[in-house]
Amino acid sequence: MRMSMFRSRMADKSIDYTLLWDPDNQYYLSNFQAISYSRPIVLLIEQKKSQYIIPALEEDHAKEKTNVDEFFIYHEKVQNSHLNTDYKEPLCNIMNDWPKDVVVGVEMDILPASIYQILHEQGFRMKDIEQDLIELRSVKDQEEIYWLEQAGRLSDAALEASFANVRVGMSELEFDSFGDQKLLEMASKEFPGLIVGYENWTCSGIERSVMPHLHSSTRKYENNDVIIHSRQVWINGYRAENERTFFMGEPTEEQKKCFQLAVDAQQAGFDMVKPGVKAKDVDIASFDIFEEKGYGKYVQHRIGHGLGLTEHEEPYLRFDNDLVLEEGMVYTIEPGIYVPGVGGFRHSDTVIVTKDGCRSITAYPREMEKLMF
Amino acid sequence: MRMSMFRSRMADKSIDYTLLWDPDNQYYLSNFQAISYSRPIVLLIEQKKSQYIIPALEEDHAKEKTNVDEFFIYHEKVQNSHLNTDYKEPLCNIMNDWPKDVVVGVEMDILPASIYQILHEQGFRMKDIEQDLIELRSVKDQEEIYWLEQAGRLSDAALEASFANVRVGMSELEFDSFGDQKLLEMASKEFPGLIVGYENWTCSGIERSVMPHLHSSTRKYENNDVIIHSRQVWINGYRAENERTFFMGEPTEEQKKCFQLAVDAQQAGFDMVKPGVKAKDVDIASFDIFEEKGYGKYVQHRIGHGLGLTEHEEPYLRFDNDLVLEEGMVYTIEPGIYVPGVGGFRHSDTVIVTKDGCRSITAYPREMEKLMF
Repeated sequence: MRMSMFRSRMADKSIDYTLLWDPDNQYYLSNFQAISYSRPIVLLIEQKKSQYIIPALEEDHAKEKTNVDEFFIYHEKVQNSHLNTDYKEPLCNIMNDWPKDVVVGVEMDILPASIYQILHEQGFRMKDIEQDLIELRSVKDQEEIYWLEQAGRLSDAALEASFANVRVGMSELEFDSFGDQKLLEMASKEFPGLIVGYENWTCSGIERSVMPHLHSSTRKYENNDVIIHSRQVWINGYRAENERTFFMGEPTEEQKKCFQLAVDAQQAGFDMVKPGVKAKDVDIASFDIFEEKGYGKYVQHRIGHGLGLTEHEEPYLRFDNDLVLEEGMVYTIEPGIYVPGVGGFRHSDTVIVTKDGCRSITAYPREMEKLMF
Repeated sequence: MRMSMFRSRMADKSIDYTLLWDPDNQYYLSNFQAISYSRPIVLLIEQKKSQYIIPALEEDHAKEKTNVDEFFIYHEKVQNSHLNTDYKEPLCNIMNDWPKDVVVGVEMDILPASIYQILHEQGFRMKDIEQDLIELRSVKDQEEIYWLEQAGRLSDAALEASFANVRVGMSELEFDSFGDQKLLEMASKEFPGLIVGYENWTCSGIERSVMPHLHSSTRKYENNDVIIHSRQVWINGYRAENERTFFMGEPTEEQKKCFQLAVDAQQAGFDMVKPGVKAKDVDIASFDIFEEKGYGKYVQHRIGHGLGLTEHEEPYLRFDNDLVLEEGMVYTIEPGIYVPGVGGFRHSDTVIVTKDGCRSITAYPREMEKLMF
């Protein structure tokens, strides 16, 4: 179904062959995902067939997972030195058989320059196909929504476990790990045989929380810390993002005010999301809440991003994005302010656009009373 | 020091400007690492200055971490819509000031085609600088070796914690999580304020263990399972890899034989590593152990890869690599065989090339008696 939708887009653009490099685009269309792409993997698609170029050690796994028609294997052991030993060999062989006047679809912002050069030198005309994949991937089907909901539920359980164990003197990484263990235990019970993963970024204290993008560290929680805990959980490839700002002890009046502004800005975002609204309207609705109170200058980032297979995926909820929201799209809603000397304040929830609004697949409490420890 | 070594290589190749895209190459030269590159970050280097193009939300973090001379910030809030709102704007502005006859160093296998196109259309001559970064990064300095050793020690402690809790009925992911918690707890005590991370791939049972590259799943351990547990741990960016094959209960005679062959092949690898030896000699020494007993056909991958900042980094210990090993290089030694119906068998350790041999920074027991549970 996904493959046939993609092929119809290729036809619309008069693209004869597509060369896909991005692992998530490959997974979306083929159902095969490797744990590492340091040995490159290439997916080639035309109307009548599809081909994978993969390293020998992924051969069995790929053949089990995907319906792609043909496999070209490259090898790295001395006995097979007479066969392909580099992914570029089968790729060039395949391209040599293509008629010279064909149009090749590529992901221009992802394809490595070295492959672009080969295509260019062979005289192929290239067209960017990335936007089509963004559009296809942005509207989730029922199966995708099912997995997103499971990821949301697991992320809520993880937050609950982390918060149940929170105390002064524990490190950001230790805090995270209680949630990790809980969700792995749950997933192991409920979803035999599946792949589950997670990422956490926890920034504690005034100086770290004002930098919205830091890895969790060994810094230990102190009395009066303001802390932003951010978690993504994925199952079967699909991700939910769940973030809460919280306090160790009683916040200052200024911190309370900032916290409430972030909560209100997020609510303004939730209220704005529905089919027909533009991406930028959501961002601006939320920004205005901060701006009205004089905190607009402490905003550093858009209100949210698309979510599905990739940590941050398009479309982005940005002030300059005219995209019209559709039912089945998935976004994070995560307005934040970062006030030097006061702290960082941001919740993030993951919402699915419904027929007449949106619903959140993450539900951990957002109110201040429940987020003081 | 690293920057000046890199600049001297640029001069040797008559490269005037370098545009670096790879996050690990950027970190190696600049000491700044973001948690996500979905907002692109570009590092530009010339003899007299260095420049970062970064998103606004990384500005404070980057300025705290790096000595790069100039910063070009791009924005994503409506108030700053008169400034740069995309990384390509400052990049094109900077390039417009470059003389047209300069040579630009790029990472040809990493740079996106869209940036290559811009450089190409502007008429700049490009040279591939990737190999120079591979060479610089392959020989570790004292500080790097210190962090690698810490990563090795943490990984051993993690394995110990996972094995202390191993039992039939637990899932691969739960097994991993005991090690995760242990290493986070240790790191939090010993290294205040630092970043620690880990990845695990645990493949249990005959069918999963013969596929060397799978994510840990919710599959539960059963009696008579053969299991390959693979763990990478990193601290301050530097990684150690530590992998053990183990059994739940008593292995079959065939499994014992395969296990011992993998141990012997790894020992042959250890014994071969020293300065002056070629990368391919290590791979072949190890492969020959399998081949002599008729198991060469079950080998799927090279004996090992370079390790440092990236999960798998060059140089690779492959049968066709003539690279001569040098003191200070770091490799995984991980020969494996994957025998259908019997199981997968592979240990991996991370070794540093010393003056006259190598030493392993990972030390968890490798003998069968210690790996039956």
